[in-house]
Amino acid sequence: MGNSFGNIFKLTSFGESHGSSIGGIIDGCPSGLSIDLNFIQEELDRRRPGQSKITTSRIEGDKVVFMSGIFEGKTTGTPIGFTISNNNFKSEDYDKIKNVFRPSHADFTYQEKYGLRDYRGGGRSSARETACRVVAGAVAKLILKTYKIEISAYVLSVGNIFANEDNLSFDNITNSKETNIVRCPDKNAALKMIDFISEIKKKGNTVGGQIKCHVKGVPLGIGEPVFDKLHADLGKAMLSINAVKGFEYGSGFEGSKMLGSDHNDEFESINGKVSTKTNFSGGIQGGLSNGEEIYFKVAFKPVATILTKQNSVDKEKNNIKIKAEGRHDPCVVPRAVPIVESMTAMVIVDHLLRNRTTKL
Amino acid sequence: MGNSFGNIFKLTSFGESHGSSIGGIIDGCPSGLSIDLNFIQEELDRRRPGQSKITTSRIEGDKVVFMSGIFEGKTTGTPIGFTISNNNFKSEDYDKIKNVFRPSHADFTYQEKYGLRDYRGGGRSSARETACRVVAGAVAKLILKTYKIEISAYVLSVGNIFANEDNLSFDNITNSKETNIVRCPDKNAALKMIDFISEIKKKGNTVGGQIKCHVKGVPLGIGEPVFDKLHADLGKAMLSINAVKGFEYGSGFEGSKMLGSDHNDEFESINGKVSTKTNFSGGIQGGLSNGEEIYFKVAFKPVATILTKQNSVDKEKNNIKIKAEGRHDPCVVPRAVPIVESMTAMVIVDHLLRNRTTKL
Amino acid sequence: MGNSFGNIFKLTSFGESHGSSIGGIIDGCPSGLSIDLNFIQEELDRRRPGQSKITTSRIEGDKVVFMSGIFEGKTTGTPIGFTISNNNFKSEDYDKIKNVFRPSHADFTYQEKYGLRDYRGGGRSSARETACRVVAGAVAKLILKTYKIEISAYVLSVGNIFANEDNLSFDNITNSKETNIVRCPDKNAALKMIDFISEIKKKGNTVGGQIKCHVKGVPLGIGEPVFDKLHADLGKAMLSINAVKGFEYGSGFEGSKMLGSDHNDEFESINGKVSTKTNFSGGIQGGLSNGEEIYFKVAFKPVATILTKQNSVDKEKNNIKIKAEGRHDPCVVPRAVPIVESMTAMVIVDHLLRNRTTKL
Amino acid sequence: MGNSFGNIFKLTSFGESHGSSIGGIIDGCPSGLSIDLNFIQEELDRRRPGQSKITTSRIEGDKVVFMSGIFEGKTTGTPIGFTISNNNFKSEDYDKIKNVFRPSHADFTYQEKYGLRDYRGGGRSSARETACRVVAGAVAKLILKTYKIEISAYVLSVGNIFANEDNLSFDNITNSKETNIVRCPDKNAALKMIDFISEIKKKGNTVGGQIKCHVKGVPLGIGEPVFDKLHADLGKAMLSINAVKGFEYGSGFEGSKMLGSDHNDEFESINGKVSTKTNFSGGIQGGLSNGEEIYFKVAFKPVATILTKQNSVDKEKNNIKIKAEGRHDPCVVPRAVPIVESMTAMVIVDHLLRNRTTKL
Repeated sequence: MGNSFGNIFKLTSFGESHGSSIGGIIDGCPSGLSIDLNFIQEELDRRRPGQSKITTSRIEGDKVVFMSGIFEGKTTGTPIGFTISNNNFKSEDYDKIKNVFRPSHADFTYQEKYGLRDYRGGGRSSARETACRVVAGAVAKLILKTYKIEISAYVLSVGNIFANEDNLSFDNITNSKETNIVRCPDKNAALKMIDFISEIKKKGNTVGGQIKCHVKGVPLGIGEPVFDKLHADLGKAMLSINAVKGFEYGSGFEGSKMLGSDHNDEFESINGKVSTKTNFSGGIQGGLSNGEEIYFKVAFKPVATILTKQNSVDKEKNNIKIKAEGRHDPCVVPRAVPIVESMTAMVIVDHLLRNRTTKL
Repeated sequence: MGNSFGNIFKLTSFGESHGSSIGGIIDGCPSGLSIDLNFIQEELDRRRPGQSKITTSRIEGDKVVFMSGIFEGKTTGTPIGFTISNNNFKSEDYDKIKNVFRPSHADFTYQEKYGLRDYRGGGRSSARETACRVVAGAVAKLILKTYKIEISAYVLSVGNIFANEDNLSFDNITNSKETNIVRCPDKNAALKMIDFISEIKKKGNTVGGQIKCHVKGVPLGIGEPVFDKLHADLGKAMLSINAVKGFEYGSGFEGSKMLGSDHNDEFESINGKVSTKTNFSGGIQGGLSNGEEIYFKVAFKPVATILTKQNSVDKEKNNIKIKAEGRHDPCVVPRAVPIVESMTAMVIVDHLLRNRTTKL
Repeated sequence: MGNSFGNIFKLTSFGESHGSSIGGIIDGCPSGLSIDLNFIQEELDRRRPGQSKITTSRIEGDKVVFMSGIFEGKTTGTPIGFTISNNNFKSEDYDKIKNVFRPSHADFTYQEKYGLRDYRGGGRSSARETACRVVAGAVAKLILKTYKIEISAYVLSVGNIFANEDNLSFDNITNSKETNIVRCPDKNAALKMIDFISEIKKKGNTVGGQIKCHVKGVPLGIGEPVFDKLHADLGKAMLSINAVKGFEYGSGFEGSKMLGSDHNDEFESINGKVSTKTNFSGGIQGGLSNGEEIYFKVAFKPVATILTKQNSVDKEKNNIKIKAEGRHDPCVVPRAVPIVESMTAMVIVDHLLRNRTTKL
Repeated sequence: MGNSFGNIFKLTSFGESHGSSIGGIIDGCPSGLSIDLNFIQEELDRRRPGQSKITTSRIEGDKVVFMSGIFEGKTTGTPIGFTISNNNFKSEDYDKIKNVFRPSHADFTYQEKYGLRDYRGGGRSSARETACRVVAGAVAKLILKTYKIEISAYVLSVGNIFANEDNLSFDNITNSKETNIVRCPDKNAALKMIDFISEIKKKGNTVGGQIKCHVKGVPLGIGEPVFDKLHADLGKAMLSINAVKGFEYGSGFEGSKMLGSDHNDEFESINGKVSTKTNFSGGIQGGLSNGEEIYFKVAFKPVATILTKQNSVDKEKNNIKIKAEGRHDPCVVPRAVPIVESMTAMVIVDHLLRNRTTKL
């Protein structure tokens, strides 16, 4: 269970890191959408391993193949089935990791939940699964383009190195972030981040980071009151991404320290258009979009795979030492940028479609 | 749409702040549960307005009435319908607020989404709706008692005043927090918080705060991989509560600054029981509970209703000045503690039931 | 579980026959719908017990009270909560039926499923629950009126007495059926049905019957392919009504005896409007409405409560004799006509709303 | 939308008749189930075209390939992804059928609903999609084996030729039906059916038929009251199969003609085991299984593809003549037997899993 996301625009995904392929089904995609296969592949390429010196050196081609739901270049309204082959997994000697649990991985909890597990790599808990999210997210982005809605996420921080977010407009972010391998639009910070990641990579260590995401052009009134508030669904979407530890939107945790008189976003009407003078609300009020820019932050923990010896246990509950080897991602956030954008796109599309049923 | 929460243990709620009553239906509650009506009412009393000098002086009795699903003191497995009357709303002259939008409230977004709105108070967007969550949460807590699972949330901060969370064990929290009106187990901090809230209340202002929640005794393997990770569902639950701006679990946003070598929770086996030496994971790995204590933080913005003049607009999009009057909550976090606990209880019960279908 | 119906326009109901009240929540009703309370009450009156000499003499007022979701006469888009009081249940001595299982009732299966049951009357399995469906169905009918979609069901048969369905146009049915207490538009058949029901009522016996339902004006393309075909959802809706044993649409079971060359509905274009020359398809092709009249039949078994002695067992699994007493419905179909219409209305509205998300 | 079936054990399918492949994802399959690949392939072979002289001569290999969710021969609890290649579709000249609508097919309704369609063959509306149901149904049957629950469906009728169902025990059916190509356990009827189908096949015509299905060994109390009654979910499952026009269980439509005194199933206790003397209830009371054999009938219309000239219209709404060519299925019921069994298996498994959450 738990392998579907969305109410109307819905992704159901399958696949383990070391099976023959991963893939998914997108149900509820409206008919008549022109599918730009190059765009979808570019999005996948933004996520794929081996794209730069600061990611894992493991290279996965990540070519998506669509099997249904698209005809003569357009969606037909029927489910879109797709697969991505797992070409690059090595037929390693898994006996070494078969009976041991890696710290802060999901080996132990999967074994306990299911009574057995696919012990080759991360199995279902591997972040490889997020490639399917990027495919569905890319389709969602194509829908959003028809609404003139844009999403742009970037790396806000790596460890203690933070971009100066205050000077970054939507266009700044969009134009700058992809010009460097860490996907940070603040060039000074980007250089420091790249250096720092390179350094910890050499040590076989890893580091966490934060991503900030902006959404521009969402029409008024998107979201559903009470349980399916727009930010609640965005939060769930982000927290479902591997390694995410926190989510905040608008003023976020800092907002909890503020007074109402400072935090309230006063309305003003300019030439018949209502907007807010400030945007502590993060573009969402009462769970519904208010027409302002939506923005939120997502915190990622450091990757659990490190190349130093750690204490752990095995299946027979003996205390053991364990040490990972080979290729690993020193910092997940640069590659997570398209994943954050993809999940955001899916949430927004889903709520746009839900919103069509609101009024008589 | 969006008025149901949960997959198996599911609450659907209804009701506006100024209608005749609010209420809900709990579907999927297992049969054979002894219903302790006093306990449920006590939980409601922890949430109700007018309970102390630092909450609104508006008094609501908040008596819950059950109409179905309980027979001879036990749940029958059929849906539990309940209502809570809205006794205390005054038949005010609503004409004053009928055509204006209060800053950082949901008036404007509801009007735009639905084309009309119940303008008497907050309507559906009022936090009054959370009383229904407390009823369902209290029923969920009764289920959790049979599993020996305990939940304890407390006020971590009010504005910039923070409790010292490091010295607070689960039992400390549980035993101390209800002994003061701000529900903070750190007595020194509690006094400061109460003073600060009293002060801003006098000024007609409001302040935000944070709540920290601990869950003890959750068995291994609860949660569903990928989209319905335990912390993703907890996050959505929290973010669906009025005024919440952020959620983090385990190491949270701070964890994004750490190295993997510091953040990983090493396993150890002691007398055949596997546990982790540290708990940066917050009791959840790969979306599944790992047997350790689950903990997370929730950030609340300051209440939007303040008693000072603000700029705003009316329905005809004229710029206007607006000033709220009367009773208001200066800080929502003390009353939100039982709400956080309730949503947590619902999530845990739902996943406990889902987990029953995992193995052959 | 299982107490909700619909995907977007969704009813969740609660209540037992002998609790204080029954009721429900309608979520997903579009905003801006004018609520005609008289119409809703009239629909309930068509279902209520005690309406004529051929129904049970038990009289229930069945007054619906709305608590939310309606403001100044219009729906607001928020959930519509409602209750109907159970005024007329007698505080009987239930000890007699507490420990016995009535043949062909749900006493035995509920006891086994849940381990306990509300033994006062039928509890949750009572057809009293269908009053909630009529409330939601009446709201759905109000929506359908704005689409100019009409639903008309009637009693096709009682026992072996069948109306001559071939001569009955939609208007005939609509205009005639409510002029007699058995709701059959064929006057000759109606008289025979009334006599037959009166006769078996005297004997304390019961009889089954069939209802035929027509839907006029459904636009082209409503329904979802594969699993949620329009007729599959209609079928589930009907089969979920108490006492229903069968459902067929279009040519139905008779169609299984036909040749393709006789059964196919040829298309013709008349003045640019495409229609079919025959309608064995029942207005639905490939699970989607084709613009023709939709029609289907529903079979009801005889009511299980009869006033003669029957063999049965008690909770201790002793063989016993059992004999019901008092008031009972000799034939359920006249009162089931508004229930069939209500479930139909809910299905059509739900699919109309789902269909709004089909195209880009 | 509408491409998923089930609540806990859930199939989501994709694929058009003339795309590269069809397939699906089974989510919610319990972990630890031994997967017998030969059994699954045998089930597919029972459905596949070209298996005998009375089916279409179109031959599809229908080899299923699993991509995930199975490890070392057992299910892991993660989603099971699978595909079946579409090898045998000819790259015909589709221009002929591109702009015309075949009578009683879904061409017209799909075009109207979606604004475009995959016009190569039936596209998504093709019964080819049911191969995915058979894969999921076979997995469900493997689960049912561990519960000792058996399902056996057979061809009850072809046109007006009916098997004598009264003499057929569960074992008779199971042992005999697969010994002839029409899957009818009544040998005399089977011969007549085969002759009749052969005859109409020569004429390019088609005929309908009925399938009866028996389920043995379902434990007491499976199903959910009110909307998700066991027979309501079975009915929806059957009605979602291509060409189905009707569903009845237990006494069915005939039951509507009976008196309560004849129809009620009296209980009896024999050696402490409660059963019913008759089984007009069809093994289900109040929507819940009562421990008796479950049985129901499903009516299939004649296949719409016939090889004679018919009136129809084209996309420009001109009246035209149309004539299909090539291979076609003269009667769908023999091949539909495994489809009916598969949908039944999925419903029973889903309710078995749901039922695990019923009691505290």
